[in-house]
Amino acid sequence: MKIAIVFGGSSYEHEISIVSAITVKNVLKKHTPLFIFVDANRDFYLIDSENMKSKFFSSKEYLKKSKKLNIEHGGFSASGVFGSKKVEYDVVLNLIHGRDGEDGKLASIFEFFDIKFIGPRLEGAVLSFNKLYTKFLAESINVKTLDYQLINRSGSRECSLEFPVIVKPLRLGSSIGVSVVKSQEEFDYALDVAFEFDTQVLIEPFIDGIKEYNQAGAKGKDWILSIIEEPQKEEFLDFDKKYMDFSRDERVSEATIDDNLKSKIEETFKKIYDPLFMGAIIRCDFFVVDNEVYLNEINPIPGSMANYLFEDFDKVLSEVATNLPKEKKINIEYLYINNIQKAKGKA
Amino acid sequence: MKIAIVFGGSSYEHEISIVSAITVKNVLKKHTPLFIFVDANRDFYLIDSENMKSKFFSSKEYLKKSKKLNIEHGGFSASGVFGSKKVEYDVVLNLIHGRDGEDGKLASIFEFFDIKFIGPRLEGAVLSFNKLYTKFLAESINVKTLDYQLINRSGSRECSLEFPVIVKPLRLGSSIGVSVVKSQEEFDYALDVAFEFDTQVLIEPFIDGIKEYNQAGAKGKDWILSIIEEPQKEEFLDFDKKYMDFSRDERVSEATIDDNLKSKIEETFKKIYDPLFMGAIIRCDFFVVDNEVYLNEINPIPGSMANYLFEDFDKVLSEVATNLPKEKKINIEYLYINNIQKAKGKA
Repeated sequence: MKIAIVFGGSSYEHEISIVSAITVKNVLKKHTPLFIFVDANRDFYLIDSENMKSKFFSSKEYLKKSKKLNIEHGGFSASGVFGSKKVEYDVVLNLIHGRDGEDGKLASIFEFFDIKFIGPRLEGAVLSFNKLYTKFLAESINVKTLDYQLINRSGSRECSLEFPVIVKPLRLGSSIGVSVVKSQEEFDYALDVAFEFDTQVLIEPFIDGIKEYNQAGAKGKDWILSIIEEPQKEEFLDFDKKYMDFSRDERVSEATIDDNLKSKIEETFKKIYDPLFMGAIIRCDFFVVDNEVYLNEINPIPGSMANYLFEDFDKVLSEVATNLPKEKKINIEYLYINNIQKAKGKA
Repeated sequence: MKIAIVFGGSSYEHEISIVSAITVKNVLKKHTPLFIFVDANRDFYLIDSENMKSKFFSSKEYLKKSKKLNIEHGGFSASGVFGSKKVEYDVVLNLIHGRDGEDGKLASIFEFFDIKFIGPRLEGAVLSFNKLYTKFLAESINVKTLDYQLINRSGSRECSLEFPVIVKPLRLGSSIGVSVVKSQEEFDYALDVAFEFDTQVLIEPFIDGIKEYNQAGAKGKDWILSIIEEPQKEEFLDFDKKYMDFSRDERVSEATIDDNLKSKIEETFKKIYDPLFMGAIIRCDFFVVDNEVYLNEINPIPGSMANYLFEDFDKVLSEVATNLPKEKKINIEYLYINNIQKAKGKA
């Protein structure tokens, strides 16, 4: 299968998307990737495989050496001296982390232009991108999440939870702008940091030594669930560590948990995934407290597509690509207008 | 001001969007409209003002007589013999009801391509388009809504509410697929009808004679609130009646309510609008039970832009157009990649 990997984007996670794309390139065994870069100006470029090195982008060499693409009905094309040429592939893989990729923009654009893609659809993206909406979603399907407090930039800065707490910009991933706060003195500073990135901030209890488990998966014709990993962590992964994390390509070992907890985590994953994330390969990060599973966050485009959690990553891609959700066709037959015209004696 | 009205779309409400656009054309006094039609295939066409008649679209005359447009960074352009020519305007007005317009797709596309527009942004669109998410939103800002039950196409068809109930497809507007149901026998049929349009259906109590009030508004530099209308209704507005409703252009009279209720409705409107709907002119439909205000639905692109509720509709457009929310600029400086290159001795 020819997979067009779309990466970059106008996002704080632009650089880690480049790292993710290079990693996915290296782990694909059966599929042939091609690469479409979205630069900071949101222009599309077709990148030759041998140029998939981080420096090619940071040095802006792509501006001189790569072909600029247009997006249009059915796909991408490059204009040339002899007219425009369509970029040929079987499916697009949306690999833009953060804004543009995970907020629903690319999902909208791909659906509007009838471009087949692996990745979260519009509603799933919007609900997982905003940590408050993720809580609403969880509540609606009876999945537990931690207590929280929402603080607006212009509102009161009183913390209503007991310290320590974790302070997060409402709409970012990859731990950007996130702090663990142990006292009132630190709280104000942590808010200032988080408000650099968003107008709203979410506060949650920080539970030292809480058990954390990650599960990735997708639904093709059947469920494809990854192994469950217990991520190694220090206090929490900061951006530098997560950054390196996006280049992971070595299989990890399965968490040592009993079958009961394993099936609880898997069932929770399935409730979250189906039907909202059909078409995507997602990773859910869970907490476990007193044998109860809590949703921490949904990564609808996980770093390096969580390839390291799957036995056969190429097969996961094929399964999802051949079972993508289809947009409902709407026939527009102008029945009302024709009726009105008739009533007026004009038809 | 030159306002590019974008209308049509791949939507069950395609035809009423045409009616809306013609109506807005007729009510504008100071601004100059131009017209961009999105046809059922989602191709864009520039429509001459004299062709703004419903038959021009239903007869597909636009295919022969109108210029096809490309969408690109910064706006729309028409290709011609002498290269491509940009369509000139000051601001776009998103006037597509239902899918594409109200579901967040056009918001995504306009933001991605840096096109200035009046209309709901991505999150506001997704939350108001899905009636379940509207309830989440209302809950988060302490606005009451009616009880409800959600039924999935593949799930149990047991009604847990007392009859009569109202059955609605989860994601449509304009009363399409909606039924009032008085008994178990009617319930199954109503579900079948609603499932024609969506995979999920929302059930709410139907309260005969419930008081209903509509308020439109926007926030520019200051609040611009319309008068509050008590819509005339029979049991409820069906599609045919709502269809005619989209061509409304005559000012209506204000509802006779006391100042206390009026200010309750206005405060509720403001809580819903700010900040989620900044940049849009929306209409909220409320119920009032025992002097308490309940949100029924949010129309982020109301029929004919609810022009008939405003004293000076041209001024509302100017106010919103000159105070549009701005997307946060993200500077991409490749700090991480440069650091890694340095550490490797490559920079």
